[in-house]
Amino acid sequence: MTTPVKRGDGVVDAGAIEEPLEIRVDSSPLAVTMRTPGHDEELALGFLFGEGLIDSPRFAGPTADLASNAIEVTGPLLRDPGARSFYTTSSCGVCGKGALEEVELHAPPVSPGPCVAGDLLAALPGRIVQPAFDRTGGLHATALFTAGGETRLVREDVGRHNAMDKVVGRALLDGLLPLRDRILCVTGRLSFELVQKAAIAGAPILVGVGAPSSLAIELAADRGMTLCGFAGNGSVNVYAGSERVST
Amino acid sequence: MTTPVKRGDGVVDAGAIEEPLEIRVDSSPLAVTMRTPGHDEELALGFLFGEGLIDSPRFAGPTADLASNAIEVTGPLLRDPGARSFYTTSSCGVCGKGALEEVELHAPPVSPGPCVAGDLLAALPGRIVQPAFDRTGGLHATALFTAGGETRLVREDVGRHNAMDKVVGRALLDGLLPLRDRILCVTGRLSFELVQKAAIAGAPILVGVGAPSSLAIELAADRGMTLCGFAGNGSVNVYAGSERVST
Repeated sequence: MTTPVKRGDGVVDAGAIEEPLEIRVDSSPLAVTMRTPGHDEELALGFLFGEGLIDSPRFAGPTADLASNAIEVTGPLLRDPGARSFYTTSSCGVCGKGALEEVELHAPPVSPGPCVAGDLLAALPGRIVQPAFDRTGGLHATALFTAGGETRLVREDVGRHNAMDKVVGRALLDGLLPLRDRILCVTGRLSFELVQKAAIAGAPILVGVGAPSSLAIELAADRGMTLCGFAGNGSVNVYAGSERVST
Repeated sequence: MTTPVKRGDGVVDAGAIEEPLEIRVDSSPLAVTMRTPGHDEELALGFLFGEGLIDSPRFAGPTADLASNAIEVTGPLLRDPGARSFYTTSSCGVCGKGALEEVELHAPPVSPGPCVAGDLLAALPGRIVQPAFDRTGGLHATALFTAGGETRLVREDVGRHNAMDKVVGRALLDGLLPLRDRILCVTGRLSFELVQKAAIAGAPILVGVGAPSSLAIELAADRGMTLCGFAGNGSVNVYAGSERVST
């Protein structure tokens, strides 16, 4: 996932690889994402699951023409991807409420899930082993933990949403969805998009190193999820679902 | 750009606002982006410019139905947005080369631009005043500097690409494109997408606090841009176009 990069002063750094990946469904191109190569199968399946386009594992592998940076997924999809109506586009304009309602269509009810000590949540970012980040400083990660704080899975990518898609795709393949008693932890900021993906995967608890946005907090509260930001250095802020966090 | 956010322990934080914005061209919905409200006109115009859809200022303002979180831009566009072929989707698969070639279609030749001391480039991130970030910790910024290191413009957003679009949109409205002798500086990681937007705006120098990806470096080198990463704390790494950086 890294490549040698020569700097102006002659020093060679390790750089994070970023390349496009085309996702095809039944041979038709559906989407292109800029990603760090590796775990492309998980990425494709996690992406489709997060869009509400599949709800069970599918074959994902090389395309018939063995095209580079392309992956083939076997359909059919649950709905026409062209008919995506994630945001209300009627004359009332788009709004956060429309976005929340759309997530509801695809997200299962979040399970009660575990109750976890705040100290444990604060410690999770420090437990994420990121071999490629340590070399490049250029990769986000998403990790899946047990309620006891044991690492089950870590995926890295230049795109934070891709790292999340890879974890969700792996969980789908392993029969772990909805996530129920697991904790998701991300190394970056908590955007609406990340909370959306976590909600659709049924995660009861999402922890981030960075700040949550206003709509991310609204969505977590709406879905009954626990959302924690600024985790690390022995502390964590709880923005939604504080009933799952003990002191 | 911030909103009060109540934490589980009762403390009220300032949260970064994130809401969808629908961009309409001649009343037809074209795209929806999750953004921090404010400077929506700049965001819409900068986005369209970066996509190669406009090359001159347009009217951008409220929609005829005064819809919330929607903005109207007057066409016509330079090409059919539906015909976007940013990546090669033929049977050869997508590749970085296809992405680079597509940028060439829309990007002007980068001017020779200024030659700047490395110390100055390293100091730029520290000169970016981010009032909303200081309160929320949740916003990216893009800034435009003169070759002498004076701040000309700063825009913040929950999305790094939106902050760049806002700066490019403002520059378009002010007749500053292509940027020629200005320096762009971003607070985050240097992804392909950010370098692409800077290249299309004609920026000779792009500086980032974070790491560049492999394809971001390739694109900068291909366009003759200077690309600097890990800027701050008195140092900066130069990954492309080192002829513009003096020691």
